[in-house]
Amino acid sequence: MCKLIEGGVCAAEGFRAAGIHVGVKTHAAWKKDVALIVSGVPCAAAAVFTKNVVKAAPIHVTKAHLADGTARAVIANSGNANACAPQGEENAERMCAAAAKAVGCAPEEVLVCSTGVIGQTLNVGVIEAGLPELYAALERSPEASDAAAHAIMTTDTVTKELAVEAQVGGKTVHIGGIAKGSGMIHPNMGTMLCFLTTDCAISAPMLDAALHEVVAVSFNRISVDGDTSTNDTCCILANGLAGNGEIREKGDDYAAFVRALEDICVRMARKMAKDGEGAKHLVTCTVSGAKSEGQAEAVSKSVISSTLTKAAIFGCDANWGRVLCAMGYSGENFNPEKVDVRFRSSAGEILVCEQGRGLAFDEGLAKTILTEDEVEILIQMGEGDGSCTCWGCDITYDYIKINGDYRT
Amino acid sequence: MCKLIEGGVCAAEGFRAAGIHVGVKTHAAWKKDVALIVSGVPCAAAAVFTKNVVKAAPIHVTKAHLADGTARAVIANSGNANACAPQGEENAERMCAAAAKAVGCAPEEVLVCSTGVIGQTLNVGVIEAGLPELYAALERSPEASDAAAHAIMTTDTVTKELAVEAQVGGKTVHIGGIAKGSGMIHPNMGTMLCFLTTDCAISAPMLDAALHEVVAVSFNRISVDGDTSTNDTCCILANGLAGNGEIREKGDDYAAFVRALEDICVRMARKMAKDGEGAKHLVTCTVSGAKSEGQAEAVSKSVISSTLTKAAIFGCDANWGRVLCAMGYSGENFNPEKVDVRFRSSAGEILVCEQGRGLAFDEGLAKTILTEDEVEILIQMGEGDGSCTCWGCDITYDYIKINGDYRT
Repeated sequence: MCKLIEGGVCAAEGFRAAGIHVGVKTHAAWKKDVALIVSGVPCAAAAVFTKNVVKAAPIHVTKAHLADGTARAVIANSGNANACAPQGEENAERMCAAAAKAVGCAPEEVLVCSTGVIGQTLNVGVIEAGLPELYAALERSPEASDAAAHAIMTTDTVTKELAVEAQVGGKTVHIGGIAKGSGMIHPNMGTMLCFLTTDCAISAPMLDAALHEVVAVSFNRISVDGDTSTNDTCCILANGLAGNGEIREKGDDYAAFVRALEDICVRMARKMAKDGEGAKHLVTCTVSGAKSEGQAEAVSKSVISSTLTKAAIFGCDANWGRVLCAMGYSGENFNPEKVDVRFRSSAGEILVCEQGRGLAFDEGLAKTILTEDEVEILIQMGEGDGSCTCWGCDITYDYIKINGDYRT
Repeated sequence: MCKLIEGGVCAAEGFRAAGIHVGVKTHAAWKKDVALIVSGVPCAAAAVFTKNVVKAAPIHVTKAHLADGTARAVIANSGNANACAPQGEENAERMCAAAAKAVGCAPEEVLVCSTGVIGQTLNVGVIEAGLPELYAALERSPEASDAAAHAIMTTDTVTKELAVEAQVGGKTVHIGGIAKGSGMIHPNMGTMLCFLTTDCAISAPMLDAALHEVVAVSFNRISVDGDTSTNDTCCILANGLAGNGEIREKGDDYAAFVRALEDICVRMARKMAKDGEGAKHLVTCTVSGAKSEGQAEAVSKSVISSTLTKAAIFGCDANWGRVLCAMGYSGENFNPEKVDVRFRSSAGEILVCEQGRGLAFDEGLAKTILTEDEVEILIQMGEGDGSCTCWGCDITYDYIKINGDYRT
């Protein structure tokens, strides 16, 4: 585990951020709705996007701007996803152009993201009008990171900010980031945005490889509701100001960087799962003893995605039958009669299913364990040595409430 | 559409049914928990089972008893799934043996099903003790069908019974049935049991072919919550008493029988979706203009399974963005810019998305349309002439409540 530090997306040298209200969120003038993150110098840049066939306009624009593997800035708004909306790409390009003008760089050096309601025309005019104020607010401070984190929130109840430091090539490098959830979170990205910054010197191809490697074992292992959004983006800017020798190939330095990146991304993923829409519990499902890591991952994802398992966790009900059932429709083949299931939290641990059969267990203790905010489902499959951990949350009345009337 | 008739699972000649309380459901002595269906003469029989890798014990027993394609009776209990439970197959065999003894047939002529909580030992003793009373209650009447339908309910709020008549080979044949939902309902069967009886004369191989053909376009096109259970079974007994020439190959008579079977199964599937746990809306999603029926089916299933779409329907919110998004992660490739989306109910019809872009529409009218109990999502993909209809329901506070504390 890396050392956690302050500063969020501004923790790395040379990065400033800001978040203000410009009017995309029309019903809540106190809610920030546009964020800007800027590096003082050009950066290597990489991103991972949603696999949804229906992709929001900013994704197409950001992909195009990333063609040369460089960037200087990220602009993002909340309140409108700019997906399936008239003039989508035109408006996304206008956001980049306005940010570029303020920053003093080319529009192609700006990445753009949006999150919010699908299908409504983005009021890009208010973003353009607000850009001078947004640019003026840029700072390198924890407060500035916090403002940017607020500006990308939709139904999130808390901001998600993290920063870590690590040793790479004999230098101290920093990786920081902000992110937002919190519905439509599912393996292969949900409606999540995550903006990462680092002062590590690393080539664009290596940065791209590291980001893909890490997203596969962090953000792609969380699920809130099984819905994969049109807008998901995780991007990273690396400006090299830490002074380490640029990472240009896979070696010790690359491995050290990936370890630090994985550390921050797994922590961020857990924050997203824990703040899933309406969630009361963070659910961690660790599968071990599978035939392979791939099998363990498929089984674990199936369990954390199971609506019935999620409802049982909400009710603090040790209904391990739901767990076994979700394993059974994961698409993986295994012998149910080798499966052990345990529940664990800071309040204790309890074995509820052994060799595929229910045990008589202490229901009071099980309830106490499952009443904690963070609960673990531990599955031993007895088939091999593959293991994997995925993260999810429970499904609650509030989830239904939030999503029953999301647009209004 | 076939003519609907009275009588449920007793509508076909020669079938009697009963349902009583014997004590599997310990907390509710007024709730029936064991059902028996018996044909006066031997029947051709066929069944379709869950694809979940974790299969309940009765499924293994029923499969074995169906090896010769014949059966005389079905015994089923609710309150305990006899899945992942000690002595599972032994207890399922004991149910068959007890039923066989009462009926006067071989245990191998009895099919067995269970539904309810997973992982607890089935109290087979109370079923054995209750069998004389159950057998004595057998009748051929709508009331008897109703009693059997009650005896297989878990969280269902209404019984599901249907019967139709059709002309096959110049004779009037009858197909009747009872079924139960209502959570864990998902393509490839949910926790559903469906027992069908017919007096049509049809060989076991043809009955098996017909049942598989029809299940694929009825029960496998409904989803309540994306969970596929360990116990799902749809079985059919055909005793030949209608006097038609036995159907031994695929021809006009087979086609007529399949049409009637499809009619009753689609109606039954809709009943299950409508009575999904906590559901307030039956949601019908019809996709047309797809490249193939397979693509239309994949897209339609993705839409009806989307938790966010289901939450929007609960809120009577015309959030077509959720629909497009769910189409996008269906795994199918298509051009979002050709997609039109409409909502329809008995209160009217409204186009909300045209060529992948949102339209300004009358929100008041949309709300009125979506406030009806039965709503349709109509999707035109503009890619070809494949079409498919699937059925689901909304997700509600009550779903969470029911499943947050299902075991107690």
